[in-house]
Amino acid sequence: MKTFTEHLQDYTSFFNSRLPEYFPFSNGEENRVVEAMFYSVSNGGKRLRPFLVAQTAALFGIDKEESLPVAVSLECLHSYSLIHDDLPAMDNDTLRRGKPTCHIKFDEATAILAGDGLLTYAFEILNQPQYIPDSNIRSELSSLLAQSAGAFKGMVAGQMLDLYTEQNKVSDNQAETTIKHIEEMKTGCLLSYACEAGAILGKADFESRKKLIEYSRKIGIAFQIADDILDVEGNQTLVGKTLNKDADQGKLTFISIYGLEKAKKIEKELISEAKEIISSLAPDTTILQQLADFIIYRSK
Amino acid sequence: MKTFTEHLQDYTSFFNSRLPEYFPFSNGEENRVVEAMFYSVSNGGKRLRPFLVAQTAALFGIDKEESLPVAVSLECLHSYSLIHDDLPAMDNDTLRRGKPTCHIKFDEATAILAGDGLLTYAFEILNQPQYIPDSNIRSELSSLLAQSAGAFKGMVAGQMLDLYTEQNKVSDNQAETTIKHIEEMKTGCLLSYACEAGAILGKADFESRKKLIEYSRKIGIAFQIADDILDVEGNQTLVGKTLNKDADQGKLTFISIYGLEKAKKIEKELISEAKEIISSLAPDTTILQQLADFIIYRSK
Repeated sequence: MKTFTEHLQDYTSFFNSRLPEYFPFSNGEENRVVEAMFYSVSNGGKRLRPFLVAQTAALFGIDKEESLPVAVSLECLHSYSLIHDDLPAMDNDTLRRGKPTCHIKFDEATAILAGDGLLTYAFEILNQPQYIPDSNIRSELSSLLAQSAGAFKGMVAGQMLDLYTEQNKVSDNQAETTIKHIEEMKTGCLLSYACEAGAILGKADFESRKKLIEYSRKIGIAFQIADDILDVEGNQTLVGKTLNKDADQGKLTFISIYGLEKAKKIEKELISEAKEIISSLAPDTTILQQLADFIIYRSK
Repeated sequence: MKTFTEHLQDYTSFFNSRLPEYFPFSNGEENRVVEAMFYSVSNGGKRLRPFLVAQTAALFGIDKEESLPVAVSLECLHSYSLIHDDLPAMDNDTLRRGKPTCHIKFDEATAILAGDGLLTYAFEILNQPQYIPDSNIRSELSSLLAQSAGAFKGMVAGQMLDLYTEQNKVSDNQAETTIKHIEEMKTGCLLSYACEAGAILGKADFESRKKLIEYSRKIGIAFQIADDILDVEGNQTLVGKTLNKDADQGKLTFISIYGLEKAKKIEKELISEAKEIISSLAPDTTILQQLADFIIYRSK
């Protein structure tokens, strides 16, 4: 029997081998922006979000081939957010998964455009009938993705609030609520989208969908706590980015609020709750349960 | 009988009065990005693209109320492109329609996020069933908008090629083809989308749609030639942006290729062809014909 890591690696290989099909190159000089888009989206790590789409869709009988366009679309959107996050005016990062960030490899203008291009392309992919024959599903996914990534209650709202708290002191009694709110929007929304997208593709019933959303919220917060812990404890080579950056910048993190030990405790509780929620959803939810565990143990 | 200018002003007033409904403010600090989005999209000028959507949809019996969400969505997308275009790493503009650009009024990070937020919101609006009940129309519009604004053959591709030609000399015999290609993608694609969106909303037949696309291509090029002429001849107060910037930067423009007189001649021919194409489309195409003329005479 395959281990979880083997399942994940198999999917990552599958995803990476199919990704180039979505990036046809033209002959004009506008190639540069497509090249930058592909450079960034190829530098992919574990493809956790696509894997979540594939695994939740699989619960409802949708195979990885059928869920692939939704997975690629989401990864394009995720990549755009990383490119723009890394820009000098934002986090000013030069390294991403051990490779130069997009604006370092290319230039700042190209990186801005590459991010814009990937964000736009995410919606183009979602709306091709050859990928998703049912127009109701195409449109529901587009609506949910836009809300999850958006400026009102989604990822962009989270990024804005994150920047705000870097520049403005949050009072101690507000810190916990604020960090949770930031992370739910900044990271959680796209993880929730990944799970809900699987349910939408699989035409899941309301109860199943609700459970998947709850599951995704728990692992979303745990994911961010794990990230904060990695930032303090991680192995720089494994993580592939500059470490201790958050603490150096005096940033609000789960560690700065709870301390390391309590953060680890909360993280474990969240994962245990997530596993409990998902367990009753289908006859076999093994992989999604192992994925919850993996959220904590990745790169450790 | 109303003049064209009165028709346009009426629509601009209608559009501007309804725009705030699409920007509900929340109470969190993420307000800042929504504030920046609304600041930019409110600074709207003539609302030419929304007006095009409304007028082409009207040819097929769709009233301005019904086409409004599509018009707002397009204007959000157009605004995003202006915000990102104005950034220091791109055109580095401080003034837009006589007001500080988004990154000057707020800051660079907020402007990047505001652009991202508006681009995302354009697709959110398009995919709300309460705005557009037919999911096929929602998805077709989303697909076309993403392609028109995208990095492969759309607006982002045009911006990339535009940047490239600023930094790399284009040979004289390539200049005309290159500038046409840039402008078709950079400006033309969204104007074409505006016209085709009206046709999609109105479930127009293939022939009508084809004519609208041809019409939009002609006025698209004329629009950019007019912009280049304005840059040389315009009244700074009326235009509301820094003039002669293109010539100062040695940028490839229609004027730098054709010279002023020939550019004006070509512009007039394009408008005359556009009017000819549109005239047979419906019993009354007066406003769209006047709009073609207006493309040349705006702000002169």
